[in-house]
Amino acid sequence: MTLRIGVIGTGAIGKEHIRRITNNLSGGKVVAVTDIEEASAKSAIEQFGLDAGIYPDDKTLIAEGDVDAVLVTSWGPEHEESVIAAIEAGKYVFCEKPLATTIEGCMRIVEAEMKLGKQLVQVGFMRRYDSGYLQLKEAIDNKFIGEPLLLHCAHRNPEVDTTYSTDMAITDTLIHEIDVLHWLVNDDYKSVQVIFPKKTRYAHEELRDPQFVILETKSGIVINVEISVNCKYGYDIQCEVVGEEGIAKLPEVPSITFRKNGRIGSHILMDWKERFMDAYDAELQDFIDAIRKTGEPNGPTAWDGYIAQVTAEACLKAQNSGKKEAVVFLEQPDFYKKNLKPANV
Amino acid sequence: MTLRIGVIGTGAIGKEHIRRITNNLSGGKVVAVTDIEEASAKSAIEQFGLDAGIYPDDKTLIAEGDVDAVLVTSWGPEHEESVIAAIEAGKYVFCEKPLATTIEGCMRIVEAEMKLGKQLVQVGFMRRYDSGYLQLKEAIDNKFIGEPLLLHCAHRNPEVDTTYSTDMAITDTLIHEIDVLHWLVNDDYKSVQVIFPKKTRYAHEELRDPQFVILETKSGIVINVEISVNCKYGYDIQCEVVGEEGIAKLPEVPSITFRKNGRIGSHILMDWKERFMDAYDAELQDFIDAIRKTGEPNGPTAWDGYIAQVTAEACLKAQNSGKKEAVVFLEQPDFYKKNLKPANV
Amino acid sequence: MTLRIGVIGTGAIGKEHIRRITNNLSGGKVVAVTDIEEASAKSAIEQFGLDAGIYPDDKTLIAEGDVDAVLVTSWGPEHEESVIAAIEAGKYVFCEKPLATTIEGCMRIVEAEMKLGKQLVQVGFMRRYDSGYLQLKEAIDNKFIGEPLLLHCAHRNPEVDTTYSTDMAITDTLIHEIDVLHWLVNDDYKSVQVIFPKKTRYAHEELRDPQFVILETKSGIVINVEISVNCKYGYDIQCEVVGEEGIAKLPEVPSITFRKNGRIGSHILMDWKERFMDAYDAELQDFIDAIRKTGEPNGPTAWDGYIAQVTAEACLKAQNSGKKEAVVFLEQPDFYKKNLKPANV
Amino acid sequence: MTLRIGVIGTGAIGKEHIRRITNNLSGGKVVAVTDIEEASAKSAIEQFGLDAGIYPDDKTLIAEGDVDAVLVTSWGPEHEESVIAAIEAGKYVFCEKPLATTIEGCMRIVEAEMKLGKQLVQVGFMRRYDSGYLQLKEAIDNKFIGEPLLLHCAHRNPEVDTTYSTDMAITDTLIHEIDVLHWLVNDDYKSVQVIFPKKTRYAHEELRDPQFVILETKSGIVINVEISVNCKYGYDIQCEVVGEEGIAKLPEVPSITFRKNGRIGSHILMDWKERFMDAYDAELQDFIDAIRKTGEPNGPTAWDGYIAQVTAEACLKAQNSGKKEAVVFLEQPDFYKKNLKPANV
Repeated sequence: MTLRIGVIGTGAIGKEHIRRITNNLSGGKVVAVTDIEEASAKSAIEQFGLDAGIYPDDKTLIAEGDVDAVLVTSWGPEHEESVIAAIEAGKYVFCEKPLATTIEGCMRIVEAEMKLGKQLVQVGFMRRYDSGYLQLKEAIDNKFIGEPLLLHCAHRNPEVDTTYSTDMAITDTLIHEIDVLHWLVNDDYKSVQVIFPKKTRYAHEELRDPQFVILETKSGIVINVEISVNCKYGYDIQCEVVGEEGIAKLPEVPSITFRKNGRIGSHILMDWKERFMDAYDAELQDFIDAIRKTGEPNGPTAWDGYIAQVTAEACLKAQNSGKKEAVVFLEQPDFYKKNLKPANV
Repeated sequence: MTLRIGVIGTGAIGKEHIRRITNNLSGGKVVAVTDIEEASAKSAIEQFGLDAGIYPDDKTLIAEGDVDAVLVTSWGPEHEESVIAAIEAGKYVFCEKPLATTIEGCMRIVEAEMKLGKQLVQVGFMRRYDSGYLQLKEAIDNKFIGEPLLLHCAHRNPEVDTTYSTDMAITDTLIHEIDVLHWLVNDDYKSVQVIFPKKTRYAHEELRDPQFVILETKSGIVINVEISVNCKYGYDIQCEVVGEEGIAKLPEVPSITFRKNGRIGSHILMDWKERFMDAYDAELQDFIDAIRKTGEPNGPTAWDGYIAQVTAEACLKAQNSGKKEAVVFLEQPDFYKKNLKPANV
Repeated sequence: MTLRIGVIGTGAIGKEHIRRITNNLSGGKVVAVTDIEEASAKSAIEQFGLDAGIYPDDKTLIAEGDVDAVLVTSWGPEHEESVIAAIEAGKYVFCEKPLATTIEGCMRIVEAEMKLGKQLVQVGFMRRYDSGYLQLKEAIDNKFIGEPLLLHCAHRNPEVDTTYSTDMAITDTLIHEIDVLHWLVNDDYKSVQVIFPKKTRYAHEELRDPQFVILETKSGIVINVEISVNCKYGYDIQCEVVGEEGIAKLPEVPSITFRKNGRIGSHILMDWKERFMDAYDAELQDFIDAIRKTGEPNGPTAWDGYIAQVTAEACLKAQNSGKKEAVVFLEQPDFYKKNLKPANV
Repeated sequence: MTLRIGVIGTGAIGKEHIRRITNNLSGGKVVAVTDIEEASAKSAIEQFGLDAGIYPDDKTLIAEGDVDAVLVTSWGPEHEESVIAAIEAGKYVFCEKPLATTIEGCMRIVEAEMKLGKQLVQVGFMRRYDSGYLQLKEAIDNKFIGEPLLLHCAHRNPEVDTTYSTDMAITDTLIHEIDVLHWLVNDDYKSVQVIFPKKTRYAHEELRDPQFVILETKSGIVINVEISVNCKYGYDIQCEVVGEEGIAKLPEVPSITFRKNGRIGSHILMDWKERFMDAYDAELQDFIDAIRKTGEPNGPTAWDGYIAQVTAEACLKAQNSGKKEAVVFLEQPDFYKKNLKPANV
């Protein structure tokens, strides 16, 4: 049975996912679209030759009987309402990050899902589907490098414009490390500290860049993440796990190596969209496959969305205080205590 | 419009392609299968939950009105007859290598296609869809390393069993280099020489292994290929292009790097099937996409199948003579002189 | 003129330097030795076939007219007294770290040297002579990567025994980073923080291992150093400098690369002595050459010894307090404000 | 006892060795120099502040009682006469390549040495002292990669001027591979073939460049060497040994790695003199040490000089014939059958 999907928000990310479902993936079909700008919804239908209806808003799209699942790719502050509406209608939801823009909003979603008694929501944290992180996780879970003790990470962008603010280094950039790293080491965050090093001359006047974040987990793992959003040289994601028996590190993005002009070298991506292209495909294919095969999504849950939001807010507090701040979670409900593993791995 | 596909031969490779079309790719659907062992055809339908008919033989499957395109994944000596039947019926054909087991057989296919006046055939040379080779080709075509002068290549398998014979190093192993390398450097082969180095103790009694092949092109490029099919350490494909301005080389397969026990290292694949997994997906997706969008396949043509067969036979002659042997092609018909580029690149 | 050298302390390090001067380097000759154990001094003479006198103590050795320079390779707490005696006698001194075991001791040496009005002392911080660090420094000084903003460093040993204590991670291990990193970025330390991650099961009961140290410089550069002295896998020194325009990183120790058993890999040193073997040669050759050519040593000065001691003590304080601690230096005397560069680079 | 050395030929290479002995190495002293241009000999004395006499010619220098050993760094065609004179005088000889410019000349030296009954001669094949090749040899000798089957090698120079001719690719360039590779695999050459690929546009009119040489050994190892003397991008020496159990490869020259402008890269040497700087030091230190300790040099012998000359002449023949040419040696005299190993390894 093909999974019939409605898309809420046909901006850049929404269109990317529509293209993916229509041209690359198997088992899904976009049957409904809505956007606050109707022209955008229309252009999506034309661009990809969709056989899909246009709906005036998220509620009517969700209510449509032909829609099995919705993709929430609207503006962040709108996510919560759409996700809760979908849950209440018993529809599956794939929601881009953030799940909600507040801790309370995330908890309302968690509670709605628990009330229904069935997991319907997957959050768009695609890194868990990246082959590099999956290899790292396998090495950790197999004890190939022993117990993790330290993680050295970096998240670097070539540049940002003046709309990018100091807090977005947490909410838009670090948020991916926040999700993937605790999953990677099977642990929870306990505290966070943010240090502002010497500012690069490429950062705009209002922006602190780079930033250096130190997260500690309950078991004592120390995770440091360099965030540099004007590093100039490329889009570069680094993650090195220091374990008791050895070290494992993310692979570089595969590139031909060349020898030229006194250099041996290879290419670094400049465009972030290419880095996790395969992971975006994999997360959505897994969402479709898991629902079709098991009736339940298999990826990052609403609870993971909550975890990310709580941690991000502690980081924002640490940016302002200059001190180590505690990260405090509610106790994880049994409802979410399952062993999550992407089906296609 | 979904491309309706009939599969002729449901052995290991046939099933792999069925899985691919059914679970991973977009726009195609397996609607018909046939195999000399009916049980195999049945098991394919069950394994992948196909809504497909079983046909007694290739002819009846090809004749089926619901079939738009056929996949020829039967035993090599059967390929020619199925391909010609499909061409005569005006059906698209994706044929695994070899296109035919003789030069004459390849030419009969070429002639059938020219007689029809439309290209229908794509040969399963998947390396042209590998991202590494595509990066190499881009570097060459953009003159990033200047004119190619020499290519240093290796094709290594961990081991083979006693059914693998000295000539299979050409027809089953080198055949992929034969196809991809002339495409890579936009040139034709002129001569070939095969040298047998000291034999590895892991080769069975009848087998010459390793082998060292030197191909020269019309413009004078010297290509050497080491073939080692009992190299023990892994499945490893190397290609380094020495140009006038610099050198470009295939990337290694991405792997986490680790530091452990006095070593810094990463993993090498042991299983050849993983190496070109993405390329297999891409070639078949391109076959489906190109037909749906342009009415014509876009990949390696029947003429490329002929080129490969002529070159392979010259290599076999060189294995026996120990001398440099000429590679002689008929003149390329205008019909096949188009600029081939995978649509999805 | 050959530089006539007296060696104070003929233990393991003393003998290493004697071997170096006698068998590898040019322009120096060991003419006098002393050790608290006379048998050790005798065995040094025999082992290297020295034409050298044995002296009862450092004072008499220093007083010997035939001695131009002394090597202080005795037990750390004895260094200060020997160095000051040598300065007062107007003899050149190459002193292994630490210059003195207290800040006050270092300052007494600095003052003795300033009183004499001539630099005689070189401290054995050999990393400044390592070709990798020299390449890094050149990249920084040439603005190849722009202004340094962050440094990610690691100092890893395979294992230590139970005599190694938590404070030795600073005084014996980090001390080399303390010296080389401020030299590398041409800046002074301002504060330091020490974090204790989850302890490796390979650390003995009394030992905190690993440790994570964060040093900030006056201009705001954030330097983090992982210290792992039971990392098991090898002796490994890492240093990556993140600049405004790009990143530069120490090379790995050169090793053949091999492909074997499903791995591509190379060797990591297990023995720390091999890592800086060439740097040890270079620092001592430079000491000999600079004195012979210019009448003054050219390497790390007594002031550098003071800087290291002050910083190390702040790190010890930070280990105990768990807080960020200030690093406070006296103002650098003009006497020591010269541009230090190894002569042989 | 210091080894007293006379230098015959104070051109660029002669001066390099004088600098080395005087400023870097231990145990040797240049006491005598001669050159066909007396001004050159004088300038060498001044430049390095030597306490050495100037002699009118090689014979008088060799006859000088204070001279223990001579360095032959004159013009190639003069080597033979100087070497034989030194042997007849019972003086040690370090002779730069070529030992003699003809096979017969090499044999006259071999016979002179055998007549004397003592090995005095070391030929300046420095690669055997390179740490990379030594690591490779250790891997081979320890059976780490099993029996060698194939070697893939390259010798690349950024550019040559018009005085460099096609035959010099053998006599000046390949000659180093000729010496080091048979030593590496403990085997003798049996045949050689030279292929001329497409010519690079950077080669001058009279020059064939690149060249591709295939050497086969008695046991059947196939060695291929790409010679590119106008490769533009750098000076680059590659050697990869394919064995029955795995592969081992020379390390790249250590360089900082950087990330900048969309590239990850490191430096390649442009100047050949830097590549084997440490090996030049080591070969001469070993010559000095071995004579001082054992009374006999320890490096490449006169017989190795003969081996190189015979092989080079077969390569020249193969350049002209375009065919596989036999490499035929006289039987190795027992006099030269010792296990050669650098003393310092």
